[in-house]
Amino acid sequence: MHVVVLAGGVGGARMAHGFAQVLSPEDLAVIVNTGDDFEWHGLLVCPDLDTVMYTLAGIANPETGWGIAGDTWAALEMLGRYGGETWFRVGDRDLATHVYRTFLRRQGLRLSEITARLCRALGVRPAVWPMSDDPVRTMVDTEEGRLPFQEYFVRRQCAPRVYGFAWEGLERAQLAPEARRALEEAELVVIAPSNPYVSIGPILALPGALDLLRDRTVVAVSPILGGQALKGPAAKMMAELGEVPSALGVARRYQPFLNGFVLDRVDGALAPAVEAMGVRALVTDTVILDPPARARLAEEIIRWVGSWG
Amino acid sequence: MHVVVLAGGVGGARMAHGFAQVLSPEDLAVIVNTGDDFEWHGLLVCPDLDTVMYTLAGIANPETGWGIAGDTWAALEMLGRYGGETWFRVGDRDLATHVYRTFLRRQGLRLSEITARLCRALGVRPAVWPMSDDPVRTMVDTEEGRLPFQEYFVRRQCAPRVYGFAWEGLERAQLAPEARRALEEAELVVIAPSNPYVSIGPILALPGALDLLRDRTVVAVSPILGGQALKGPAAKMMAELGEVPSALGVARRYQPFLNGFVLDRVDGALAPAVEAMGVRALVTDTVILDPPARARLAEEIIRWVGSWG
Repeated sequence: MHVVVLAGGVGGARMAHGFAQVLSPEDLAVIVNTGDDFEWHGLLVCPDLDTVMYTLAGIANPETGWGIAGDTWAALEMLGRYGGETWFRVGDRDLATHVYRTFLRRQGLRLSEITARLCRALGVRPAVWPMSDDPVRTMVDTEEGRLPFQEYFVRRQCAPRVYGFAWEGLERAQLAPEARRALEEAELVVIAPSNPYVSIGPILALPGALDLLRDRTVVAVSPILGGQALKGPAAKMMAELGEVPSALGVARRYQPFLNGFVLDRVDGALAPAVEAMGVRALVTDTVILDPPARARLAEEIIRWVGSWG
Repeated sequence: MHVVVLAGGVGGARMAHGFAQVLSPEDLAVIVNTGDDFEWHGLLVCPDLDTVMYTLAGIANPETGWGIAGDTWAALEMLGRYGGETWFRVGDRDLATHVYRTFLRRQGLRLSEITARLCRALGVRPAVWPMSDDPVRTMVDTEEGRLPFQEYFVRRQCAPRVYGFAWEGLERAQLAPEARRALEEAELVVIAPSNPYVSIGPILALPGALDLLRDRTVVAVSPILGGQALKGPAAKMMAELGEVPSALGVARRYQPFLNGFVLDRVDGALAPAVEAMGVRALVTDTVILDPPARARLAEEIIRWVGSWG
């Protein structure tokens, strides 16, 4: 079964890693949000792509979910000494990724080509594709004004109340050819338990993405459990945008193209409401911190979809 | 006494450090070769400026003379894993310098302004100025063809026979305003024991530099001792260019604007030949590996020039 995972950062990387353990590499492609990409001291940083790449390469920092295990901070400390901004934490090994990516970008390679090169070097065998080769920048409209995503997410630690989002560059952006082809060939599209607004939202907003999803079998894994996000500001954003933070709200968001929705056991009572939307519901353990749990969930989803006949 | 030191890399940094120990900061400016600057993975690297800056900041690696003491290599190792070139060794802290300099350069700051900012952050109090804000790139014409300086110097370890030099960008380059002002105000210009061809040569080749030197008291310290260079390819280059490698050849090169020449004791016998050129000669210890030796030589030069009356 050809599977495409739509992924943001940590949650997306964990779900992708589950499928990577149970599928042959040629049957898996991960399409990753690039809306939270940004320029850091002149370097192109792609946090979600890196988190997925490092996780699939087996070098992700297991404690944070992002960054490289055992990375050191000598360059960042020195940058701070020079007066550089250090609120976005870049380790020494991680810095090499940004330097090399920026170097290849300036040579004219597309982000998809660069990502393939970096992944190959790290021994990542499933395909990892940025959603777009064109820059798209998520802006968060807050009570403190419009903030670039990383300013909101890392520097302000999601504290300011959110009113909405805007995507700079989206009007000129296209799905990358590799991502589009992967979606066209997908027998199953899995929307990872990533933030529906700022991780999955930008992917779905690209021209043609929704049409491709409508023609395919799409399953989403809820990033909300018992009204809370396991990681990140998804639940807080829902509340601030006037919605009850609930897995149900996520299912409703994806409903127009959704065939199946995976709920955590704590939300088992919501399954009938999901089914009432015409969407199949699977209730299971969705906390996938460790690699075996990730593989188990991936396998369960494949078996479940296979059973639909 | 207002002193300006013309410097290349390690030898220049050591001589500058000598004067920094015996003069008040406002009486010392170091003008540094930028002919060996180059782009490394898209970053602007200025090896001589960095060596001078790190040495004056007291953080230079005492074993190599270049780089930062105790620096680590995590980023370089990762760059190598991605397929990047690693023959030019950049430590993690050193990498921060190149990232931040490139960042400021892309924001439109001149190299002189950037250098001042980096030096201030590292607590370097004497002025350190690049010779030019315009890119000048030393090319070495060798039996293997024309090589960019770092390719010749680091990658090929000065092995190919040298036929000559060329400076890309020189025809459009000017002395930086700060370097020019420092020269105009100098009561003594000291040419450090740096390579006459590739370290001092580019500084002298900038429009107006020779005229400024002719109007000033200029002392050079020989980089050649007993027919050998203490460090680097100066003696080898002299031989390959058809000259007998000797301190005398260096004095002859600088003779048109030279007032005094400092020879090592091993070359004491050459002093009369120097004086026969109309240049005063000082014979002393010129090996200045450790900080006290550097200060001693600087003090001796100041006393010597002061005694001319």
